[in-house]
Amino acid sequence: MINPDISLDSIYEAAERISPYIIKTPLHTYPGINKIIATDVFIKHENHQSIGSFKIRGALNYLLSSEIPNGVIVASTGNFGQGVAFAGQVLGVKVKVVVPKKANTVKLNAMTNLNAEIIEYGNDFDQAREKAEQLSKDLSWTYIHSANEPMLIAGVGTYTLEILQELSDVDVIIVPVGGGSGVCGTCITAKSMNPKIKIIGVQAKEAPAAYESWKTGNIQTYISNTRADGLATNFGYELTQQIMKQYLDDFLLVSEEDMINAVFLYLKETRNLAEYAGSASLAAAIKIKDALVGKKTVLVLSGGNITMKELQRVIALKV
Amino acid sequence: MINPDISLDSIYEAAERISPYIIKTPLHTYPGINKIIATDVFIKHENHQSIGSFKIRGALNYLLSSEIPNGVIVASTGNFGQGVAFAGQVLGVKVKVVVPKKANTVKLNAMTNLNAEIIEYGNDFDQAREKAEQLSKDLSWTYIHSANEPMLIAGVGTYTLEILQELSDVDVIIVPVGGGSGVCGTCITAKSMNPKIKIIGVQAKEAPAAYESWKTGNIQTYISNTRADGLATNFGYELTQQIMKQYLDDFLLVSEEDMINAVFLYLKETRNLAEYAGSASLAAAIKIKDALVGKKTVLVLSGGNITMKELQRVIALKV
Repeated sequence: MINPDISLDSIYEAAERISPYIIKTPLHTYPGINKIIATDVFIKHENHQSIGSFKIRGALNYLLSSEIPNGVIVASTGNFGQGVAFAGQVLGVKVKVVVPKKANTVKLNAMTNLNAEIIEYGNDFDQAREKAEQLSKDLSWTYIHSANEPMLIAGVGTYTLEILQELSDVDVIIVPVGGGSGVCGTCITAKSMNPKIKIIGVQAKEAPAAYESWKTGNIQTYISNTRADGLATNFGYELTQQIMKQYLDDFLLVSEEDMINAVFLYLKETRNLAEYAGSASLAAAIKIKDALVGKKTVLVLSGGNITMKELQRVIALKV
Repeated sequence: MINPDISLDSIYEAAERISPYIIKTPLHTYPGINKIIATDVFIKHENHQSIGSFKIRGALNYLLSSEIPNGVIVASTGNFGQGVAFAGQVLGVKVKVVVPKKANTVKLNAMTNLNAEIIEYGNDFDQAREKAEQLSKDLSWTYIHSANEPMLIAGVGTYTLEILQELSDVDVIIVPVGGGSGVCGTCITAKSMNPKIKIIGVQAKEAPAAYESWKTGNIQTYISNTRADGLATNFGYELTQQIMKQYLDDFLLVSEEDMINAVFLYLKETRNLAEYAGSASLAAAIKIKDALVGKKTVLVLSGGNITMKELQRVIALKV
């Protein structure tokens, strides 16, 4: 076991803890998607959570199991911040979110609506992260790292519990990777329950830091240049890289065009709004469809928080 | 009791019967919507069903409780047809759907993907309906009317059971009305459980046949001219009018522009794709928001099957 805080037991405990505040999301299959990928594909609809992403699970698990003397401060491109803002509002904890400039406006709005204080700083996630770490020290507020945090990973691991409860004979699970909390939750849950399940991570070609870190075995830095804000990290993170190194079966990169195509397919074939990051697992499945034939495949649709401008762009390119 | 086949008991039975095939959809609240309507608003997400609408519930309840010697034939602008096609595929029953010309392509595609046979006929729903009735006689296939059918109404009534199980102190439920099966299911369920709950129906100004029939107490005919294909009926139907007459508290009309606005708000504030019909309850709530202050209000988001062209139009008008 890599970390005693992220055992399968801790994921079961998280599921119990957060269950009053989240929904068990559906695992739907769509003939239109099955036709394209030519196998039985099941979509895990984390976009159906009220904040539109899986991050709600980790944030709730953290806040429900921690002493927070003053308040919580995080850095986020949006979905993690929304998760913490939601958990803070429900549980009566003050929340500050440091976001990079030009962050996704839909996510910013949602965080503001959930009464989080927004602090705009830096040009990318990692600059915002450094600012948040500094502020946390200055103010004596609790800092939560969006990836290097066992309670977050245990919390987001709960969607994979739901997948396996519903589809115990799944063969492959494909998960988008930003900082890596989601895919690590999937790895620990699925591999503990059935080591034969293949877990495949997906990152953007234009933001390959986690991918390159995993490939080389050392933390790598790449300045991200993707429209998929949910995948836009510049470094591999220690804890998640450690877990991925042990468990992850494969790691793929998808282009911006692949994701535009996948966002459009989700709209057309499933009537779901996916953000670029959320669509990355579908984009990857299309690329490796020949290898998926005959394998029950789950695609994690991790989030749906696309801006109206990006949605307009996808539709203009595809209709 | 109006019809012994649609008691609260029959709705409980339907819920039991269809539960292996549907999801219990979430009832989410969104700060961005609450701000606009200025009260606590809860969205019943029937767009999260795998076929993207509530019709799956009625179709399953009918097919699961009926003898079908040959196959089933229905007329539909799309969502009902998808529901029956889904139920037919799951239960091994052959399905033919008569659709009017120029039907919603997303819905047509989905029905074809579910292996229903599509027959294009007539310029509107009611012409398709007459053709389906004739074919049913010619072929000795079972015909299911999309509104005048107790088992459908009992089936779709199950989403209102879920609403009341989760939010027993709801004050107002607003429901889009096409043929009326949805709103009748809501009326019977909610009024049986708590007669004080107000039920409000909504139709398109450009397709007011059910509204005018309810207002005047007699079946009225209006040629529909709305983009909301889910609301596009030309007549009031007998059984649903009878139930609405007894139970419905109010009935509103919304313009095409109101619905465009509501589809956009769903995208922006909730990251959900709504079709025009599905958005009609939000459009109505915005119109009567002063009357809703202090009242816990549920909006039924009945369906999300908008075409890519219409989505493009909404975004072009609103972004």
